[in-house]
Amino acid sequence: MKKNCLVLFLLSCGIYQASAQVVQSPDGHISLNFQVNDKGEMLYQVDVNKKAFIAPSELGLTGKNGVNLSDKFRVKEYKYDSVNENWTMPWGENKQHNNHYNEMAVYLSNPEGTELVTRFRVFDDGIGFRYEYQVPGVDSLFVMDEQTAFNFAADAVSWSIPASFDTYELEYRKLKLSEVENANTPLTLRTDKGIYASIHEAQLVDYPEMTLVAHGPHGFKANLAPWPDGVKARYAGGTFQTPWRTVQIADKAVGLINSSLILNLNEPCKLETTYWIKPMKYVGVWWGMHLGIQTWKMDERHGATTENAKKYIDFAARNQIQGVVFEGWNEGWESWGTQQRFDFTKPYQDFDMKEITDYAREKNIQIIGHHETGGNIYNYERQLEHAYEWTAEWGIHSVKTGYAGGYPDGHSHHGQFAVRHYRKVVETAARYQTTLDVHEPIKETGIRRTYPNLMTQEGAKGMEWNAWSAGNTPSHEIVLPFTRLLSGPMDYTPGTFDILFENTRDLPTRQKWNDQDKGNSRVNTTLAKQIANWVILYSPLQMASDLIENYEGHPAFQFFRDYDADCDWSEALQGEPGEYIAVVRKAKQNYFLGVSTNEEPRTLTIPLTFLEADKTYEATIYADGEDADWKNNPTSYRITNKRVTSTDVLTVQMAPGGGQAVTFKPRN
Amino acid sequence: MKKNCLVLFLLSCGIYQASAQVVQSPDGHISLNFQVNDKGEMLYQVDVNKKAFIAPSELGLTGKNGVNLSDKFRVKEYKYDSVNENWTMPWGENKQHNNHYNEMAVYLSNPEGTELVTRFRVFDDGIGFRYEYQVPGVDSLFVMDEQTAFNFAADAVSWSIPASFDTYELEYRKLKLSEVENANTPLTLRTDKGIYASIHEAQLVDYPEMTLVAHGPHGFKANLAPWPDGVKARYAGGTFQTPWRTVQIADKAVGLINSSLILNLNEPCKLETTYWIKPMKYVGVWWGMHLGIQTWKMDERHGATTENAKKYIDFAARNQIQGVVFEGWNEGWESWGTQQRFDFTKPYQDFDMKEITDYAREKNIQIIGHHETGGNIYNYERQLEHAYEWTAEWGIHSVKTGYAGGYPDGHSHHGQFAVRHYRKVVETAARYQTTLDVHEPIKETGIRRTYPNLMTQEGAKGMEWNAWSAGNTPSHEIVLPFTRLLSGPMDYTPGTFDILFENTRDLPTRQKWNDQDKGNSRVNTTLAKQIANWVILYSPLQMASDLIENYEGHPAFQFFRDYDADCDWSEALQGEPGEYIAVVRKAKQNYFLGVSTNEEPRTLTIPLTFLEADKTYEATIYADGEDADWKNNPTSYRITNKRVTSTDVLTVQMAPGGGQAVTFKPRN
Repeated sequence: MKKNCLVLFLLSCGIYQASAQVVQSPDGHISLNFQVNDKGEMLYQVDVNKKAFIAPSELGLTGKNGVNLSDKFRVKEYKYDSVNENWTMPWGENKQHNNHYNEMAVYLSNPEGTELVTRFRVFDDGIGFRYEYQVPGVDSLFVMDEQTAFNFAADAVSWSIPASFDTYELEYRKLKLSEVENANTPLTLRTDKGIYASIHEAQLVDYPEMTLVAHGPHGFKANLAPWPDGVKARYAGGTFQTPWRTVQIADKAVGLINSSLILNLNEPCKLETTYWIKPMKYVGVWWGMHLGIQTWKMDERHGATTENAKKYIDFAARNQIQGVVFEGWNEGWESWGTQQRFDFTKPYQDFDMKEITDYAREKNIQIIGHHETGGNIYNYERQLEHAYEWTAEWGIHSVKTGYAGGYPDGHSHHGQFAVRHYRKVVETAARYQTTLDVHEPIKETGIRRTYPNLMTQEGAKGMEWNAWSAGNTPSHEIVLPFTRLLSGPMDYTPGTFDILFENTRDLPTRQKWNDQDKGNSRVNTTLAKQIANWVILYSPLQMASDLIENYEGHPAFQFFRDYDADCDWSEALQGEPGEYIAVVRKAKQNYFLGVSTNEEPRTLTIPLTFLEADKTYEATIYADGEDADWKNNPTSYRITNKRVTSTDVLTVQMAPGGGQAVTFKPRN
Repeated sequence: MKKNCLVLFLLSCGIYQASAQVVQSPDGHISLNFQVNDKGEMLYQVDVNKKAFIAPSELGLTGKNGVNLSDKFRVKEYKYDSVNENWTMPWGENKQHNNHYNEMAVYLSNPEGTELVTRFRVFDDGIGFRYEYQVPGVDSLFVMDEQTAFNFAADAVSWSIPASFDTYELEYRKLKLSEVENANTPLTLRTDKGIYASIHEAQLVDYPEMTLVAHGPHGFKANLAPWPDGVKARYAGGTFQTPWRTVQIADKAVGLINSSLILNLNEPCKLETTYWIKPMKYVGVWWGMHLGIQTWKMDERHGATTENAKKYIDFAARNQIQGVVFEGWNEGWESWGTQQRFDFTKPYQDFDMKEITDYAREKNIQIIGHHETGGNIYNYERQLEHAYEWTAEWGIHSVKTGYAGGYPDGHSHHGQFAVRHYRKVVETAARYQTTLDVHEPIKETGIRRTYPNLMTQEGAKGMEWNAWSAGNTPSHEIVLPFTRLLSGPMDYTPGTFDILFENTRDLPTRQKWNDQDKGNSRVNTTLAKQIANWVILYSPLQMASDLIENYEGHPAFQFFRDYDADCDWSEALQGEPGEYIAVVRKAKQNYFLGVSTNEEPRTLTIPLTFLEADKTYEATIYADGEDADWKNNPTSYRITNKRVTSTDVLTVQMAPGGGQAVTFKPRN
């Protein structure tokens, strides 16, 4: 502690010493201590507000074939840097970002000849660090394990999904850290002292994803998704760097959401132009298949027919919606469940590409292509270049991809092999000025900063689970903003208005297609919460999930017409994971507020101080009906139109499982 | 009285005697007594519930040149008839009508050789009578006056506009009968005993319109609109019949609205086919001119340009609106205010008929043509046949006509000359399967039954007065259903959402164009009442009056999208003239409820017993905001979506000058 105090003193003078092993956040409230123990192993610890937050925790990787990536390290030098820069995204929750951190790069080497820079960056909203290895004289290199640990100083409440190398579509659990056996990231926690934090990673490139396994009384160790042969990462040559390991830290839960840390730890945009990357709202032929009333394959219940496509294009054109997606448009679905060999340039006979693309062009609607791979990465990569070229020739510059199915040859879904594949798709799509919406993705780690054509991804239990399973609980969608969405946008596809499937449940065409379908599936929210989710569950490609017929006649659909997916600024105003959340976004001159609650009815008081001070706004409030209740009366809602200013305070009353959304448009 | 009792007895036995001079309503509560006095003048009186309602009142016409149409009459015979028949309209507030009456036809003659049938029909909801003259041996005949009187037995409260032979666009007045110097019809009244009645006429064909002048202590005498030479009606030959003089009678104010009496007194449909006659909703280039931000003539502010036309067609296509009207599309507006010579087949150069009609056809939108005559009937009649032929060739089968301006040669607007002209237009339009929306019309008298292509008319102070004058009071629109609308549909053009003209008042293009424009015009209702008026102010061609820009972003516009102008059944549920009204209409399976109040805030309790008993309905309620008030906060509104059944009771809370509208759609 004496040493720490000295370092603190020196830092507070703005003087960095080569011998120092502490780096603090710009505002000083977070400090990170680095040390090498007597075995030459690296350790770090993190204090928040001068109290231990992460106790000394292990660092380093495990090599193979005599390559030592883990111990006998000796510090050669500490290098310090401070950065405070503003930068912009072409789209995002926020277009302006501030990147403000103090960096400590620890230069190490060991007797086996391994050169390592362990680079720490400490922000006011958390920390990040990564390993930059250089092993001279090897022509290949194998990472067998990662030692990185997060040994929290005390137990805490946490929210996470179980670790899986194959899926993120799992229930969130609220557990004490000490109860978590394994988890995927982001794992979010709240300490008894009211500190909120979230473990994740940034810039996951050419490396397997990191999951967490229990380690010590209330800590974790990294557990990487392996290759089929057990190797975690492999490189030709001896130089590589890992993704950033990140811990976002905030004194309020919403502070995690309002943090740019993950994006700040990614490389700047590599694309020469980004004018062609535009957020949009979309609808599509998709939900009908999940409801079991349509099929992907070309039979008498086929969803993606020319006729349906034009109907959806018409609806979009009528409703200020820019895009439409058609799943099941191409050959390959008939082999579903076997070794799938989709053809990404062969439309089904009843899906007339020319007629549909001409029609969409005439109506000024963007078609979002769809590439379901079924997990057959080889088949996709074989066609990749040609598929994106062909798609672009049809004027389609946005593609939804899907990987529903196991990978070939025993590859895990989230290993280095897969990470490389997803990167290749992003780069290929970029060459054809094509944006991506990736389902069954690798988790987001801020790649969108470098390749902003990677716009949105699934990577959690989304709306579709409501169609054919017990579905998502009312609290699930209020855990997501504090966990999954910290990593980046999610194509959750909110906005199902026919909450109880009343319009489709008894249709003669309905067939059970999914084992989890017990015939009693439904959406577990009120209708107003579905609207609020369009704001809360950020996606630059934001879908109105329901069958378009189910929006007809609903005045509440005006919210989606008005909603602007291309927002400029956002702020999470209030919230607790799994309990409630209030988020406001600004797009041009308009503001959109989304508020929601879990199973509990709730009243929030929201000062409208985010509005511009000298303006009057027309507020249109989409609220739960007085008698609404997600379980028994989910579709009852109220819309109120009135004038407000920034000095007004909004009282947001929400039903059990309910929500509220508000548009604010300036009057003058 | 003894004689009456005898007649009552005989009638109750179903036996009509040649000597009887009383005829009763089918249910017996209205009885009409006819007599000829010792001068051979005809008189009638009406009892309601066995009490004098109309005291003995004069009948007959005044002839000229020795033709005696008024006295020395002797009854030759009484003929009785009873009719109870159902018939249908191709469209209307109701498609099914019941025509149930007892008739007494009095055959008379006088020494001058005049043969007359005075035909009385007594319904449960009022009376009607007309004169059928035959004067043998004359080659022309002049009616100089009409004696018909309505000598009410007691004073009463009444609602009417002043009599004018040139316009109906006048303020309604609430006056005692004894205070009314003159009035146009419908004149509606309420007696101290709670009997409601309305004087009007039915089937006004080849005869001048009837206005009323004070006559006796609290009665009226007919005053016909004259030719320039003072003659009231002229005929070649000696045979003619007058329109029906009608008195609707009900024990509730809404009973007058629910009556089919006016239609029952018209001839059945004369058209061979009516499949081409379809109610529709429409928008159009029109309000901008009234607001002073656009012009009818082709200058830099021209409203009816190709570009604007396509914008309106787009909006209609997007919003489940079937029609669009473009005023100021044709040459002639540049001569406004002088002797106007519109050309009904010459579009302005910036209005490309081919491009616009092609575009509308492609979008499946009906164009409503516009024929403003400026009152120059000669100019219109000269082009009439060709104009309708040319219009139909463009695929336009609906025309809005206008007669804003004095008629040539001193003709009054409502005299026999004009009545003949309007009839000619209806018949011409019918030959080209074209429907009409007549502005500055002859008042409606049920002609729509015979020529259902005459769909709607103006004929009262409509929305336009709000654009440039002190406007219509909050009570005005609640007098209309009990007066003007008893005669037939009105193209009031409700639905202005930018109540205070906030979006246009300060536009640089705005120019005062009307002397009554004091720069402070506005709409004197809440926004919710504008919605309610779409239901209340029935028109088979129902317009959303506002600039389409002013609907964008309004969830409340969903009401108009959902509203079905082609209703099957209607019922006025509650109401008092000038105070409040509640009307429900059914179209296919959906119900639409409209409720409104005058300057007073008001809460009505409306049992939903009109809904089908075994069904659950999704009710979408468009209500005034809690803080709404027509004067200071007119645009605050609330929309509520919930489930209801026929056993529910709706509590309708309305702001001062407010209203409420509800759509009910069956869920199962």
